[in-house]
Amino acid sequence: MIRAAEIVKTVAEVRERVARARAEERSVGFVPTMGALHEGHLSLMRQARADCRYVVISIFVNPTQFPPGEDLERYPRDLRADVRRASEAGVDLVFAPEVDEIYPPGDCTFVEVTGTLVEGMCAPHRPGHFRGVTTVCAKLFSIVAADRAYFGEKDYQQLQIIKRMVRDLRLALEIVPMPTVREPDGLAMSSRNAYLSPEERRAAGVLYRALMKAKEQFEGRERKAAALVEVVTKTVATEPLARLQYAEARDAETLAAVRLIEGPVVLAVVAFVGKTRLIDNVVLGRR
Amino acid sequence: MIRAAEIVKTVAEVRERVARARAEERSVGFVPTMGALHEGHLSLMRQARADCRYVVISIFVNPTQFPPGEDLERYPRDLRADVRRASEAGVDLVFAPEVDEIYPPGDCTFVEVTGTLVEGMCAPHRPGHFRGVTTVCAKLFSIVAADRAYFGEKDYQQLQIIKRMVRDLRLALEIVPMPTVREPDGLAMSSRNAYLSPEERRAAGVLYRALMKAKEQFEGRERKAAALVEVVTKTVATEPLARLQYAEARDAETLAAVRLIEGPVVLAVVAFVGKTRLIDNVVLGRR
Repeated sequence: MIRAAEIVKTVAEVRERVARARAEERSVGFVPTMGALHEGHLSLMRQARADCRYVVISIFVNPTQFPPGEDLERYPRDLRADVRRASEAGVDLVFAPEVDEIYPPGDCTFVEVTGTLVEGMCAPHRPGHFRGVTTVCAKLFSIVAADRAYFGEKDYQQLQIIKRMVRDLRLALEIVPMPTVREPDGLAMSSRNAYLSPEERRAAGVLYRALMKAKEQFEGRERKAAALVEVVTKTVATEPLARLQYAEARDAETLAAVRLIEGPVVLAVVAFVGKTRLIDNVVLGRR
Repeated sequence: MIRAAEIVKTVAEVRERVARARAEERSVGFVPTMGALHEGHLSLMRQARADCRYVVISIFVNPTQFPPGEDLERYPRDLRADVRRASEAGVDLVFAPEVDEIYPPGDCTFVEVTGTLVEGMCAPHRPGHFRGVTTVCAKLFSIVAADRAYFGEKDYQQLQIIKRMVRDLRLALEIVPMPTVREPDGLAMSSRNAYLSPEERRAAGVLYRALMKAKEQFEGRERKAAALVEVVTKTVATEPLARLQYAEARDAETLAAVRLIEGPVVLAVVAFVGKTRLIDNVVLGRR
């Protein structure tokens, strides 16, 4: 029999529950999400469950991380199904606030990471997105006051930015990165996969195939970033339903551009399949 | 016999000391400073001592809040005297970090408050100043994890910005504002008063006199902001050693410009006396 996670909507309730857990000397794990939970999210929750004695998730479709014209309005929402899945993964507390609880009237404070981390990849294509992500995470981290927070490597740039923010702001929180969870054909799990038609779904496998082809070349001693990017670009181009937004090779930690691969590098790809924007990456030369 | 405050230089030491205090169920008060402690700072520490069972101060001349060309290099520093004064005020812990401890190499994260709070007053005259203040306070608040932090009303705009940041970022911290402490002639206590020559020191009293003249007019039913600003401007102009930077009347909470005084308003004045920039304010119509 599964114990249902408790659902709360206010900052005060979260603080009260976490303080109670702390009073029992329970460590606290946190998984921030926008809901529409899939196996990727659930893998984070299971790891939090294994590591910590009290597990909190947030379900909040954060408006400030959707640049104008993106899918804020139609982003999938199903709190009931999400709470069921979270409960099955062993979550204790679901924080599902309204927008005003996170952005009180007159809210005007931002947290922003600058420099090479936001120079390329998704940043120029989604203006304001990462500022929205860091701002909401700073708020959620303060509200939940966890020992560890779990993030998937699928959103690789987000993960590096959050790690930097936590380090720079001296937050007492460990960021735990978790590997991307994939469908049998390699497609990275994403809430946005639900937008795909059956035909698009089949086509979407091309992102992972493209990354794997480049990885093969890397393992065959190709060290020129441009050559690997070209492999990705050409492979995505073979799929008529896919339209590449970018393929980039960047330093795995600073996300600075690289020409020759000498240390760990992230090879990232973003493509539209139909109207759906899909994102994936692989880290090459990981120590 | 005064118990000497303990001095630590690292984030880890602060966290360890505060955790120990918390384990003894002691509430934690915090006073962030740039050192050169005067009676204004000490009044904050004494209030923290009265309110809380463990009192932490930081002494850190924060480089990011000094715009280029300001007095970062010559800002007064005397850790030994500061620790003695803090000890006398009942402080338990002095956090005196090096710059790298607060801004680790590669640091690139900022916290910024936007909108009416940074539209006028000191903001246009000190570009980047408040971003430096909010960023360092966000870091210090995370490091110290206090229940209450104490700020003086002399730096009125800073106080309002910090209050907003704490509210917006949902920090579990109460900001306690404390009245400006003044010299016998009304000059607001400031570390920068040490820069003044005896002649300049005498002239510096004009800021407070100007504010008091405007306050009299307000109490005599003058409600036009421009008229009160003019009183301040004209009074400062009577002092040959003083050069006005600005006099402004603004909503006491949002710092939006006001024309007619209908609610609480801050009347703020900044003037150079010689090369020293002095700042003062009075709140009119406070509820």
